[in-house]
Amino acid sequence: MQNKPALTLVKIGGKVLDNPVALAQILEDFSTINGPKILVHGGGNEASRLAEYMGIQPLMVEGRRVTDAAMLDIVVMTYAGLLNKKMVAQMQSLGQNALGLTGADGNSILSVKRPFKNIDFGFVGDVVAVNATFIHNILTQNIVPIFCAITHDGQGQLLNTNADTIASQLAIALSELYNVKLYYCFEKSGVLEDVDNEDSLIKNINEKLYKNLREKNAIHSGMIPKLDNCFEALNKGVKSIIIGHHTAIASKDHFTTISL
Amino acid sequence: MQNKPALTLVKIGGKVLDNPVALAQILEDFSTINGPKILVHGGGNEASRLAEYMGIQPLMVEGRRVTDAAMLDIVVMTYAGLLNKKMVAQMQSLGQNALGLTGADGNSILSVKRPFKNIDFGFVGDVVAVNATFIHNILTQNIVPIFCAITHDGQGQLLNTNADTIASQLAIALSELYNVKLYYCFEKSGVLEDVDNEDSLIKNINEKLYKNLREKNAIHSGMIPKLDNCFEALNKGVKSIIIGHHTAIASKDHFTTISL
Repeated sequence: MQNKPALTLVKIGGKVLDNPVALAQILEDFSTINGPKILVHGGGNEASRLAEYMGIQPLMVEGRRVTDAAMLDIVVMTYAGLLNKKMVAQMQSLGQNALGLTGADGNSILSVKRPFKNIDFGFVGDVVAVNATFIHNILTQNIVPIFCAITHDGQGQLLNTNADTIASQLAIALSELYNVKLYYCFEKSGVLEDVDNEDSLIKNINEKLYKNLREKNAIHSGMIPKLDNCFEALNKGVKSIIIGHHTAIASKDHFTTISL
Repeated sequence: MQNKPALTLVKIGGKVLDNPVALAQILEDFSTINGPKILVHGGGNEASRLAEYMGIQPLMVEGRRVTDAAMLDIVVMTYAGLLNKKMVAQMQSLGQNALGLTGADGNSILSVKRPFKNIDFGFVGDVVAVNATFIHNILTQNIVPIFCAITHDGQGQLLNTNADTIASQLAIALSELYNVKLYYCFEKSGVLEDVDNEDSLIKNINEKLYKNLREKNAIHSGMIPKLDNCFEALNKGVKSIIIGHHTAIASKDHFTTISL
């Protein structure tokens, strides 16, 4: 276990994706990380903006986008097209040989269309397999994969997929080959006791504390799926996880360390 | 020279990209090609349609799109996003491990922004370098690269690039390592003496015949840059070139063979 090489996996999402200055800083900070690394990004508001332009009303249920055929096209255009390729070009200008990927590319992430229960989420995928061999081969060539939140079902269908889940599933699959350090970066300083107070940062959170805080309803609803993902990943071999502000990549500050 | 492995490079463009049935057939035909292969695609009318939706008027000068910042975003969304990723997913469903690429990905195709002469083409790139090592490494993993017509300048800028040029520059660069067979596929049966008469197909064209036909103004203006690209490629080591209907990949009919 100790002999595995290190791999850093950074997931960025939220408002930073809509802020070119913050995004440029993140890519610069990310490029200073030594050794193999992977970037995973969400979509920001770009897809909603384009949908509005085209007169299509984005529909959100339980914090997740309902993806009909028209919205899937928009999501693929903005996530896999605009956002992903601009980041790849920026990384190249920083001397980093980036490669933009959806889960369809290299069959890197296979998913299934979410089964219809109470809500039909449309063309939304749940990850079922990660092609660690393909990703490992890319990493050994000093290439930096940049994943957007699109996967495929192997039957020709692209699927909109939660970026946090993509990050944790990649981290789990690659833990067979690497000691994976996973960063979830967004606009907050980490897990906060009071979501409106950055000083209420919890510096360390483990499963027991998480259980206690949930019982007291002291975890913000948006943070629950993130933390569930984290503990699943740690239980499945991921070495360490950090949730924090996007400046945490370089500053080693403003973050929460998640442990079992 | 004879010991180099074969590589098939297929460029598709024109109206077939707007016809899902024809496109599915092309991908099926393409998937039957044995050995290493690469697909290069243009953009069809998808970009113009999206621009119209968004109230942006596409501007064409001398048959080429003028690409301002707004149009570049649209081109990146439709070529690198929608078209490219749908093709990658479809190829995966055919058991072909496809990988969608712009020239920024893996620093595979570097270009320079076209210098301003009489016409400012905007964010349009002329190819200056192909990363044959990266592409060769991909091919040796039985991965099928699918290139869209976007490149980068290495300074963070994506650039709209002619797909025919991308195909010929890839073919030339990879001729160091492979015996490259290059197909240019579109909706016509090949090079026609009379553009409105499919029976006027020229089955073989060499440099001498091309020169004669040009002197007689018997080559359609849209075909001239294509043929110029072909003869440049043949003179720089590409083994064989075919211009023909997209069914030519499988049917071995409806095409013109280009030779020196």
